[in-house]
Amino acid sequence: MDIAAANAVIDRIRESVHSTHGPLVVSDIGGFGGALRIPPGINDPVIVSSIDSVGTKVSIAAQARRYDTVGADIVNHGANDILVVGALPCAFLDYFAASRLDPDVVADVVEGAASACGKLDCALLGGETAELPGVYQENEFDLAGCMIGVASEAELIDIDRVRPGDAVVVLPSNGLHTNGYSLARRVFRGYSLDHVFPELGRPLVDELLAVHRSYVRDLRELLPMVRSMAHITGGGLFDNIPRVLPDSLGVDLEWGAWQVPPVFELIRKLGGVDFDEMCHVFNMGVGMAVICAPENVDEFVYRIPGASLAGTVRTLQQGEERVRILT
Amino acid sequence: MDIAAANAVIDRIRESVHSTHGPLVVSDIGGFGGALRIPPGINDPVIVSSIDSVGTKVSIAAQARRYDTVGADIVNHGANDILVVGALPCAFLDYFAASRLDPDVVADVVEGAASACGKLDCALLGGETAELPGVYQENEFDLAGCMIGVASEAELIDIDRVRPGDAVVVLPSNGLHTNGYSLARRVFRGYSLDHVFPELGRPLVDELLAVHRSYVRDLRELLPMVRSMAHITGGGLFDNIPRVLPDSLGVDLEWGAWQVPPVFELIRKLGGVDFDEMCHVFNMGVGMAVICAPENVDEFVYRIPGASLAGTVRTLQQGEERVRILT
Repeated sequence: MDIAAANAVIDRIRESVHSTHGPLVVSDIGGFGGALRIPPGINDPVIVSSIDSVGTKVSIAAQARRYDTVGADIVNHGANDILVVGALPCAFLDYFAASRLDPDVVADVVEGAASACGKLDCALLGGETAELPGVYQENEFDLAGCMIGVASEAELIDIDRVRPGDAVVVLPSNGLHTNGYSLARRVFRGYSLDHVFPELGRPLVDELLAVHRSYVRDLRELLPMVRSMAHITGGGLFDNIPRVLPDSLGVDLEWGAWQVPPVFELIRKLGGVDFDEMCHVFNMGVGMAVICAPENVDEFVYRIPGASLAGTVRTLQQGEERVRILT
Repeated sequence: MDIAAANAVIDRIRESVHSTHGPLVVSDIGGFGGALRIPPGINDPVIVSSIDSVGTKVSIAAQARRYDTVGADIVNHGANDILVVGALPCAFLDYFAASRLDPDVVADVVEGAASACGKLDCALLGGETAELPGVYQENEFDLAGCMIGVASEAELIDIDRVRPGDAVVVLPSNGLHTNGYSLARRVFRGYSLDHVFPELGRPLVDELLAVHRSYVRDLRELLPMVRSMAHITGGGLFDNIPRVLPDSLGVDLEWGAWQVPPVFELIRKLGGVDFDEMCHVFNMGVGMAVICAPENVDEFVYRIPGASLAGTVRTLQQGEERVRILT
């Protein structure tokens, strides 16, 4: 993209970016970096950060020429990742690259990101767009982003507080979120993005580009009652839950304890994918798995729409799987 | 990449990543995000952050199958960007993506980044590798990274302190750094990466993959004397210096006041690129342009190897270019 086109993009997105800038953003610092004050009232603040991409969901977006939803995906993905550590989002920076930059596409992505940031009280603090001829396939792009949050060190999630007998409460996903798209694209290869499967009741494109849910608003007030939690991303329930458990513990989950969005059954059936692989690749309807004391289950289940008690923490016996799904 | 291969990479890079973790890193927080304490002794700390890529320098690295230098490039690029705002690097997160992930390549990139982080006392706090089949060209990859620094709000660079008559001191680049690679690759297309141009005295690949210099160590102690500074990246001297000047000011630079690395003259000659375009695309030997009071010039020139007085700040008259290079 030439400099004039770059400037045109900058002008178009300026307003949406600035709409995310609350009083904590230090303005007029030039443009090489963004600056943000530490939110007040946090004792011994620590910076918590995570960088992510939305995976091959970008290919669906490119094919559909719909770019705002992935902008929101990457923000919510990062927000969930730092939430798991106990931090709330403060600032986000996005990275967009393609072989050729279309200023309107860049603006759509950034507006999607800015809109998601706005809902999280998070500043879209910076970003980079890069034109890399010869690196990306024609009409494809990639999108990554870095979420920065702040927490009080004493209030960071400490997974060593998890005890055998603790409850596992699952929070509903609204579909694939941002994982399993390589497999999903293979399964749906023969179908138009406009195809309406009766099970889904909406065009395939709407299902596949549904925005990754953020759990920040659901969990913000409940963080003191969270003993540990896992954002269910690549690797599914099997790989993500062990990341937030002490080595000596595992969990049993009861299949049927939560609603499984119909897209997963559709993929299993169309693709002939076995249950074990499904649970390793997809979130299977669980966006976030929260571990809490049994006496606090009701706080989560009654206050968060769709949340349900799904299992318990157990002491791991030799040779046992960390995560068992009891069907 | 399958999960087992991903785990092998994680093991191989763990040591180099951990080597960057000083006492400020909060450890054992699970792995969804990294956490860092605010460095002590900073009044009213603000978080300063920038996200960048190394542009099509990645294509040279992919062609040469040399991956550690771009890992260092992206760290130093981000460090320079936040330095311009007055912040020192604290934490870095990298993003690496390709159509197919080679675990050894990922490890090389991360080790290069970790090595550069180590030299800057910056923690490699997190990272993401993504395999995106169909998005990237075969054998190509992309690399981006987010640098997070901290500064005292009162000590942020305030470009409004720049006055007419201030001096411009330039700090030497060691080559292209990370900008102008699309043009450079076009110019050098007919040459093997092993070709040794007499002007360069080393193989082309070594010239083109020379690591982007960081100016953190040069400028860290001198920040209180910096009125403004520009990291010379895409857009060169013409576009980057105005970003850090009040609207009413411009600068005159004297061509010949600094050493121009021979690669630029070689590109100009081989590619038939005119001087104006050269100065818009490349750094032309200037990695960082520092604006200071005239009485402080000696502090920079005598303490930073290769630094030289190159021009002055002037009041902008109507219709004048913001940056003039007097030849």
